[in-house]
Amino acid sequence: MTIIYDKIAVIGVGLIGASIALAARRAGLTSNITGCEIDSGKAAEIEKLGLVDHVTTDAVAAVQDADLVVMAVPVGALGDLAAKIVPAMKPGAVLTDTGSTKRSVLRDVDPHISGAIHWLPSHPLAGTEHSGPAAGFAELFDGRYWLLLPREVPEDEVVRFESFVAAMGSVSERMDADYHDKVLALTSHLPHLIAYTIVGTAVDLEGQLKNDVIRFSASGFRDFTRIAASDPVMWRDVFINNDEAVLEMLQRFSEDLSYLQRAIRWGEKDKLETLFSRTREIRRSIIDAGQS
Amino acid sequence: MTIIYDKIAVIGVGLIGASIALAARRAGLTSNITGCEIDSGKAAEIEKLGLVDHVTTDAVAAVQDADLVVMAVPVGALGDLAAKIVPAMKPGAVLTDTGSTKRSVLRDVDPHISGAIHWLPSHPLAGTEHSGPAAGFAELFDGRYWLLLPREVPEDEVVRFESFVAAMGSVSERMDADYHDKVLALTSHLPHLIAYTIVGTAVDLEGQLKNDVIRFSASGFRDFTRIAASDPVMWRDVFINNDEAVLEMLQRFSEDLSYLQRAIRWGEKDKLETLFSRTREIRRSIIDAGQS
Repeated sequence: MTIIYDKIAVIGVGLIGASIALAARRAGLTSNITGCEIDSGKAAEIEKLGLVDHVTTDAVAAVQDADLVVMAVPVGALGDLAAKIVPAMKPGAVLTDTGSTKRSVLRDVDPHISGAIHWLPSHPLAGTEHSGPAAGFAELFDGRYWLLLPREVPEDEVVRFESFVAAMGSVSERMDADYHDKVLALTSHLPHLIAYTIVGTAVDLEGQLKNDVIRFSASGFRDFTRIAASDPVMWRDVFINNDEAVLEMLQRFSEDLSYLQRAIRWGEKDKLETLFSRTREIRRSIIDAGQS
Repeated sequence: MTIIYDKIAVIGVGLIGASIALAARRAGLTSNITGCEIDSGKAAEIEKLGLVDHVTTDAVAAVQDADLVVMAVPVGALGDLAAKIVPAMKPGAVLTDTGSTKRSVLRDVDPHISGAIHWLPSHPLAGTEHSGPAAGFAELFDGRYWLLLPREVPEDEVVRFESFVAAMGSVSERMDADYHDKVLALTSHLPHLIAYTIVGTAVDLEGQLKNDVIRFSASGFRDFTRIAASDPVMWRDVFINNDEAVLEMLQRFSEDLSYLQRAIRWGEKDKLETLFSRTREIRRSIIDAGQS
């Protein structure tokens, strides 16, 4: 138990922000955590849950003394937030975010950064379908990757942040924004888009059929409904802000789906069996990689 | 513990067949189970695992004394199997199957049925991504639906079979073939097709990107790889045999996906958020229905 950042400010205390506060406290990495939430109803809930040491609705006040500022809001809100808080930050403090799209975050936040602080974008690959402060828990990051995008930050500050995420249970990994957005487009954004789509298709079914789809959902569909219950605003922002990589992966996916559709229509059994056998291998690779 | 069928024959002792043998034995519903597997290597494995009382590679011999015969083979193999075993069955015995597509099963099996036996098609909504005899377990059907398609079978035989599946932990439900195939097309077949497709898309990525998709799979993609690891032959047969309903649902899905694709391309945030909020409701319905 070593203090890594004496004072931490978490802006946006939802699933991710609350979990960071709880994980940092569990590991004894800080002596004081301030949580900021502009919505006063949510701020009261955070206070009641005892997730942080101090709660405020004023982001500028929250960051003034902080050694580490974590922006854990939807990616569409990061630019305005940075414009507001960076001038109020302590010289030498570290600013990070938890956004799921990284090219857009650099585009939106970089213009507001001053040389007095260290801007170290990051992305913890962790989450659940639940959202809001009450959904947070200290174990969320255990064994999960936390991607860092160090650019002009001194190496010792990067290493310090790496020791912070490691102490919260994560495995840190450095990456650049282009590659990040491509990998996440396929591993996370496209699966969410597809899950939202198929559940949306079910929403539009007529009465009895829709009820029975819900009743008999255990046969595969249920996994999709879990993914499609994720936070609507966060995911709206993800798709808008990683549109290029998502649309490219979606194009590949659509071509592959058309190929299977045609195989079904024409009864081409061999094509189906060949693909279905190949996809099994990927699952084995994931199990071998210890990610199952 | 009451014997419901004195002797049971299970043809095809994979995940489902093995689980039926184990569940029936656990509940004391039978005094004798014969398992049939044409592949002699697999037959030896079943013998070694002690899943049934007798193992044979001869389906005709397996069914001769049976009061209940369960055909648990891929749906594409049911017609030939029925042609072979029905003439050898005991008068008054019950024949069922576990196939995931029901219109094709009636089409393929009905022509071989004689008036001397009771043909009661069924479909347990249970399974895992694992396959083969060693994957079976007695609890597979606990709390899961088991759909029955009684047509010209005496009511007391239907009730007897319902008590059998209830004693194995399942909830039975009567349904007709057209409706079954429509519901399953959306709850099970389309999710599997989509999962196979997106994992297939990943298989075709170039080296490093593919490796990183596997490494960082925990962000949503991993759920799809689990589904896409399901038995290739079983699923090939499902798509070929429920082609009509699957292609219809796939058409709806593709239209809905194009709508979202367009919304992303044009930055239509409201459309995305509205849909993502609606899909959350379906998840709540499933949780309320106790199916989560």
